[in-house]
Amino acid sequence: MTPAITFWFEFASTYSYPAAMRIDRAAAAKGVLVEWRPMLLGPIFAQQGWKDSPFNLYPAKGQYMVRDLERICSALDLPFQLPKPFPQNSLLCARIAAALEGALRQKFVQAVYQIEFGEGRSIDDPLAAAEALRRAGLDAALMEKAQEDSVKNLLRAATEEAQAAGVFGAPAFVTADGELFWGNDRLEQALDWAVKGHL
Amino acid sequence: MTPAITFWFEFASTYSYPAAMRIDRAAAAKGVLVEWRPMLLGPIFAQQGWKDSPFNLYPAKGQYMVRDLERICSALDLPFQLPKPFPQNSLLCARIAAALEGALRQKFVQAVYQIEFGEGRSIDDPLAAAEALRRAGLDAALMEKAQEDSVKNLLRAATEEAQAAGVFGAPAFVTADGELFWGNDRLEQALDWAVKGHL
Repeated sequence: MTPAITFWFEFASTYSYPAAMRIDRAAAAKGVLVEWRPMLLGPIFAQQGWKDSPFNLYPAKGQYMVRDLERICSALDLPFQLPKPFPQNSLLCARIAAALEGALRQKFVQAVYQIEFGEGRSIDDPLAAAEALRRAGLDAALMEKAQEDSVKNLLRAATEEAQAAGVFGAPAFVTADGELFWGNDRLEQALDWAVKGHL
Repeated sequence: MTPAITFWFEFASTYSYPAAMRIDRAAAAKGVLVEWRPMLLGPIFAQQGWKDSPFNLYPAKGQYMVRDLERICSALDLPFQLPKPFPQNSLLCARIAAALEGALRQKFVQAVYQIEFGEGRSIDDPLAAAEALRRAGLDAALMEKAQEDSVKNLLRAATEEAQAAGVFGAPAFVTADGELFWGNDRLEQALDWAVKGHL
């Protein structure tokens, strides 16, 4: 069986951006399949008593996160701009991602991250979502489909599934045997675990 | 000039343990000098509104931290046991470390971490501190010296210095040009930055 991991991401999450941009190459190099799964951190953070991003609640952490991301993205040759407001409302794009599957989902997700953290634009704006669909070669009609109850339910169920797997932040990686890894900096360990069953 | 980093650690911090045990070899391999600096996270966390470890305040994060540490320590061939209560009161050992310098400080610090997270013993116990002094080949009389006002002031000033450098958690690494790196998993980046001035 080909080793596989589930990649849980949230569009509002800064560290999900470098993860989404580099996971393809890193996983391919180790022969690991990646399942891209959108989720919402809002309901998960609310259960921890947070009504805002921890990076806003704890300013020293927020300031460090921006510098850390600048360094990480610079080393990856990725542009990085923090959009305003931070965090972005990710609901519209998360629903569109939930309405897609496989390679189309992946293309759309990468286009959203490029617009949001590469160009610093607001992804709450339907024009930005439409632009991401265009860059991914997809039909703008998906914006309407994403508002159907079936899609809303898919995203809600995905968030519950992530939480049941222990996910409390993004990005997160879960192997087939249920090991949870949190953070862009744990991608390599998650891939190693998927292949070897240990680090 | 030989590249150098400041290694800020806190005995109550789980992730400071693997950092303290592996930093020597990692820094030597890149030709970087390490200055070991004890500090207290209590006053820093209090300013963020926390009266307990975030790993206790947010149980999902705490559960993940233990599993993450098990994996990290296993890959490093280090034993890992979480002492009870968690976090440990680190004041006594931090003061002893503040009373020491150079290689003696380092030996004592590593002995404390070995007792605390390698053997799961309580470092608040003066017997444990005495045992760490013994393993480091040091005089038990240092326990009394550590209670002098001059030593208390040293540790207080160190904590303020850490905070002024932007430190908000442990372990943290600061390069000569002021770049801050947070977490055991950022050690390699901190060393690279010390050598090259970028990642």
